[in-house]
Amino acid sequence: MADKAQLQEAIKTQGEVVRKLKSEKASKEQIDEEVAKLLQFKAQLGGDEGKHVFVLKTAKETLTGKYGEDSKLIYDLKDQGGELLSLRYDLTVPFARYLAMNKITNIKRYHIAKVYRRDNPAMTRGRYREFYQCDFDIAGQYDAMIPDAECLKIVYEILNELDLGDFHIKVNDRRILDGMFAVCGVPDEKFRTICSTVDKLDKMAWEDVKKEMVNEKGLSEDVANRIGEYVSMQGGQDLAEQLLQDPKLSQNKQACAGLTDMKLLFSYLELFQVTDKVVFDLSLARGLDYYTGVIYEAILSQTIPAPAEQNGADEAAVSVGSVAGGGRYDGLVGMFDPKGRKVPCVGVSIGIERIFSIMEQKAETSSEKVRTTETQVLVASAQKNLLEERLKLTSELWNTGIKAEVLYKKNPKLLSQLQHCEETGIPLVAILGEQELKDGVVKLRNVASREEVDVPRADLVDEIKKRTL
Amino acid sequence: MADKAQLQEAIKTQGEVVRKLKSEKASKEQIDEEVAKLLQFKAQLGGDEGKHVFVLKTAKETLTGKYGEDSKLIYDLKDQGGELLSLRYDLTVPFARYLAMNKITNIKRYHIAKVYRRDNPAMTRGRYREFYQCDFDIAGQYDAMIPDAECLKIVYEILNELDLGDFHIKVNDRRILDGMFAVCGVPDEKFRTICSTVDKLDKMAWEDVKKEMVNEKGLSEDVANRIGEYVSMQGGQDLAEQLLQDPKLSQNKQACAGLTDMKLLFSYLELFQVTDKVVFDLSLARGLDYYTGVIYEAILSQTIPAPAEQNGADEAAVSVGSVAGGGRYDGLVGMFDPKGRKVPCVGVSIGIERIFSIMEQKAETSSEKVRTTETQVLVASAQKNLLEERLKLTSELWNTGIKAEVLYKKNPKLLSQLQHCEETGIPLVAILGEQELKDGVVKLRNVASREEVDVPRADLVDEIKKRTL
Repeated sequence: MADKAQLQEAIKTQGEVVRKLKSEKASKEQIDEEVAKLLQFKAQLGGDEGKHVFVLKTAKETLTGKYGEDSKLIYDLKDQGGELLSLRYDLTVPFARYLAMNKITNIKRYHIAKVYRRDNPAMTRGRYREFYQCDFDIAGQYDAMIPDAECLKIVYEILNELDLGDFHIKVNDRRILDGMFAVCGVPDEKFRTICSTVDKLDKMAWEDVKKEMVNEKGLSEDVANRIGEYVSMQGGQDLAEQLLQDPKLSQNKQACAGLTDMKLLFSYLELFQVTDKVVFDLSLARGLDYYTGVIYEAILSQTIPAPAEQNGADEAAVSVGSVAGGGRYDGLVGMFDPKGRKVPCVGVSIGIERIFSIMEQKAETSSEKVRTTETQVLVASAQKNLLEERLKLTSELWNTGIKAEVLYKKNPKLLSQLQHCEETGIPLVAILGEQELKDGVVKLRNVASREEVDVPRADLVDEIKKRTL
Repeated sequence: MADKAQLQEAIKTQGEVVRKLKSEKASKEQIDEEVAKLLQFKAQLGGDEGKHVFVLKTAKETLTGKYGEDSKLIYDLKDQGGELLSLRYDLTVPFARYLAMNKITNIKRYHIAKVYRRDNPAMTRGRYREFYQCDFDIAGQYDAMIPDAECLKIVYEILNELDLGDFHIKVNDRRILDGMFAVCGVPDEKFRTICSTVDKLDKMAWEDVKKEMVNEKGLSEDVANRIGEYVSMQGGQDLAEQLLQDPKLSQNKQACAGLTDMKLLFSYLELFQVTDKVVFDLSLARGLDYYTGVIYEAILSQTIPAPAEQNGADEAAVSVGSVAGGGRYDGLVGMFDPKGRKVPCVGVSIGIERIFSIMEQKAETSSEKVRTTETQVLVASAQKNLLEERLKLTSELWNTGIKAEVLYKKNPKLLSQLQHCEETGIPLVAILGEQELKDGVVKLRNVASREEVDVPRADLVDEIKKRTL
């Protein structure tokens, strides 16, 4: 804390130096030098200040005239100087930077936040330029494949429990890919770009992928054909064992390391009971540069029927494809550490926005009612002048931890109270009337079945808990 | 959905028009006109696109060279044109804009997110320029004071359950303040600025506040003295009744409306059993312009002792002051609606960052262990070569919904497994050994008491649930 306060002070002082130079119209070199110092202090601070600044891009006019004399505190972006700015592309790179800057050597965490990609949006498929991702990562120096297997277990659990239909998870390893490229005769400097081309196999036919390799990336037909043989292979632990016997691959150190780990991974996945959905697939490449080991991608098998109003001739059904992906990236944290200290990491990104879009479309198609609230009970009345009794009971329920609601009207109609429950999915209504108050009971109504039963007031909380567990 | 896709298309086309004009160095007027159209389309879209764009301010270099061929998709801010940008100051104004743009007329929601204020940071008091706020708001046309009372109940519940020591919640009403200014002889056009001065009474003595009114804001001594009498008043429902009889205030329509509602509010607060902490305080003003009715602020009474290492002579204890505040703002949504349609709102902002800072300092002072994980049980072993059995049991527990962890090591020492539990606050350890496997049991250890008991494997889940409820 003491160090932090000192840094904070240094940043303040340095900030004044920079502002002074700017106001004096000092030379660009001089200002740049002082700004560099300022940024160094901010980086050292390591806290949120100066590192992650989330910005609401909105016309300043929106904020003007709302805050009275506090308006001077509004942050204007135009004051922030000429730094090169970008929107974050994923949550992995910021996570790695966070670990390096805070010298964290092991952590397991999830993170739900927005990321940005200048891609072609496809709203019907849940693809936007600004979208939420949900990342789960395990960082730390551990024994091989144990955290990797946990990541796959988590993806399996999520897709299983969300009940989105059949799915499978493709697994591969960057080292196997690199080894494969080497034994096929791809020059070292073309590994990454050929990897990107292989990655298109989920959207393009092999013939087109091959064309790109030969015509655009300059591979010979022979080399491309050799790659073609490998990338058509799919299997499980058995395929890893078979490839370890492959006369060419078995001569490549990287490929052997990857294949040995793949065998180990499958033995753990067996214990986790998830091998029925996991496929070792040599065509899985994933475009990103930072992966160093295992990579994986989860794919929904089903296409989701498009809602009726959009169901044009050209778009009969919506195919969603990949809904999660990830892998091991052991080098990324080291890129942000001044001394290059590595922290091995493995993680997964869940495309929650796409998953939501599928669930919404599913709900639309089945005209299922989606519950929009966690409220367990609505406190209601059929008679007038019982607002105070309703508020009192609501407060009693709140005090015991029951999620209760009450309409904010003095004398709402019983019908509108019941309709509110049906619209929002509140399962129970606690109805108060003169008679109930006299008898010390509450009429508890099940919204779905319309059954009603008188419950002694003292038993109400237990009864609600029992019925909404 | 169809409309949305069309708008998306229109935005794309219009974006190209703007870019073309810019590249052709067209006249500013012409570009502005086309940009205005573009913004209109974006506003119509109403979705997240183009409206709320959160931006990670970070040197572009951080992102460069990480994404391979996907790098072209990275969003650069420099391309986004010359709009005036600001960071959001609070969550209330964006909420109001969201309601207006999506034509939402009633909603109740909470929102936790970052806001930005160019204030003097005070880290020891949990005051930062970038900080999280937690807002709760109820929007809709309802009967008077019912949602307002619920907001106060929620503040009361939060501060009570967090156990942050004694607190009180000051309540006032903008209409009472305005009425009071009017009967004291403050000219209409000075209401807002005098309001801001009154708001300083929690940090400044009355004498200094009075000086500001007279010397800086140009009130006469007499007028200031009359204000001084009112703002020294504190009470409850009784004070509201008394002021309704006040010969001057009772002549003012606004004041009467405010005082009548204040009486009603206290009657509801009585039913909610929170009047012991709520004070009707005429000195509470709150600086923001957008309030139209009830306003409130929660204040912690205790000062928190500073942690030992910072406890210099000049800073003996840390006073935190206001940790929550809010009020009614019936006009704000209408400011964003093209037709000025109003949606009455009442809400509260919880200063969670300040509250966290207090809780952390409290924990530091009491050297209490803060639990950093929700994990219920660690699956461990004292013997070698049991990784597979540990993984299998972990998976079994996960499948039943138990939060279980396992160290990612082949043969970790029992001591390091127990230490992990103590460091992270995991309360139970499920220990496997050859003997336990043979007997079909698991040794369940309570980390705190060190008690161990053999539990038949079939009963393990129930036993863990029972012990960690």
